[in-house]
Amino acid sequence: MTQPPATDQVSFLDGRTRLYGIVGDPIEQVRSPEMITWELQQRGANAVLLPLHVREPDFDAVMPQLQRLANLDGLVFTIPFKARALGLASRLGPQAQQIGAINALKRTRAGAWVGEIFDGSGCVEAFRRRGLPLAGQRVMLVGLGGAGSAIAAAVAGQQPALMRLHDLDATRGARVADTVRRISPGTRVELGPPVVDGMDVLMNASPVGMLGDPRLPIEVDRLPEALVVFDAIVKPEMTPLLALAQRCGCRTVQGREMMRGQIARMVDFFLENS
Amino acid sequence: MTQPPATDQVSFLDGRTRLYGIVGDPIEQVRSPEMITWELQQRGANAVLLPLHVREPDFDAVMPQLQRLANLDGLVFTIPFKARALGLASRLGPQAQQIGAINALKRTRAGAWVGEIFDGSGCVEAFRRRGLPLAGQRVMLVGLGGAGSAIAAAVAGQQPALMRLHDLDATRGARVADTVRRISPGTRVELGPPVVDGMDVLMNASPVGMLGDPRLPIEVDRLPEALVVFDAIVKPEMTPLLALAQRCGCRTVQGREMMRGQIARMVDFFLENS
Repeated sequence: MTQPPATDQVSFLDGRTRLYGIVGDPIEQVRSPEMITWELQQRGANAVLLPLHVREPDFDAVMPQLQRLANLDGLVFTIPFKARALGLASRLGPQAQQIGAINALKRTRAGAWVGEIFDGSGCVEAFRRRGLPLAGQRVMLVGLGGAGSAIAAAVAGQQPALMRLHDLDATRGARVADTVRRISPGTRVELGPPVVDGMDVLMNASPVGMLGDPRLPIEVDRLPEALVVFDAIVKPEMTPLLALAQRCGCRTVQGREMMRGQIARMVDFFLENS
Repeated sequence: MTQPPATDQVSFLDGRTRLYGIVGDPIEQVRSPEMITWELQQRGANAVLLPLHVREPDFDAVMPQLQRLANLDGLVFTIPFKARALGLASRLGPQAQQIGAINALKRTRAGAWVGEIFDGSGCVEAFRRRGLPLAGQRVMLVGLGGAGSAIAAAVAGQQPALMRLHDLDATRGARVADTVRRISPGTRVELGPPVVDGMDVLMNASPVGMLGDPRLPIEVDRLPEALVVFDAIVKPEMTPLLALAQRCGCRTVQGREMMRGQIARMVDFFLENS
């Protein structure tokens, strides 16, 4: 039999590789392993981000033990664990403190676990990368769930002139309005049905338009050409709202760009010394 | 800013990747992640083998919870966990039953964890790949620790004519001799100091000659040219024993070949349906 070739090993993994994981149930659909691992390795880190399939009833028993793996440096949380992840953090980063939710955890050199949330900063990063300002702008935001409330807080951090917020749940709307006012006292905050007249930016963070849903998150036939239109939905990449915006000549920002922005900020967080 | 390239993701990891791990303390020195991952991916499996650094005092608490990760299909154990791994198996494979030790565990489709040991079958596989028979041969084996006793059992399974066993610990020698007799009643078993006269194969499974140790595991100046000489030591690849054997014109089998054989058998075990 011939000798095995000298290349009988992979180059992306060895005994010194640092581990990160995304925790969810189910896990097969996540995109973070290929995208965050790419970003980690682009930055020169010997690190991978793995899918970690923790079944929902096992979460409380499994997670504290996983956190004891000495070469596991960070975790990302997806459905259905976003809310429960908060309990695993020993302290919170600035965005997480504002919102009271996390989607990532990292181990500090001292061994503490810091929680932070990147849904909102991913959106702000996507606008920054496209050279589209949010400071001083008038922003209409539809949908104030997990992603929407994080986007509201991050956009507020950019000091827009006006934020008009809409959610079917009025209590939620009032709570997010308070958060925005606290973060940016100079921003005028309105609660009410979605409008585009007098707005510079329209953001959708509701599920309307997701996965074959033909509806728009706002009742309009046309959009002003000067409006910048953002949709947080990742699948499909071209939602009904974005398709309308493109027909009307608007500039658009896609959910995938927010995801890329989120990944960049999350990897900053994972790799910075703290 | 320019758009990120379309290739902003790695190809070796995604949400469907099945996980395997090597558990040790320390972990940085292990070679299994790059070698076993290569073998898994060569076979077409969407799978990786990760370094899992479990600190020694954490083993009993962490391992049962790690085994609940629903996309973790197998584990390999290295120093200092080889003995404790046995307690994590719900049943044992044939080699592990003979020796009473394991170095790998896999999850069956029914959710049980089967333990097996591959130190010995890796050695036998290395001889098979080189076309060197063990059946009917006279084999001198020096060193009957973890690897040595596994090698003794696997070589016994090949029905050699004679096995002469040597270890500084006489109790250990007697126990391994019993194992060999049980596996291969037709093999003549001797216990005593290492000799090469009348032998076809000399195997070293002792640490003598490891990492700059200039000693030979047997007191000789020359080796018969017809002798086949095997050394289980991986570092250095050329041990003092193998260097002497090459000077004397003997055929040699290196520790790295045993490691490759062990990886092949271990991946067979991981991927076969059971």
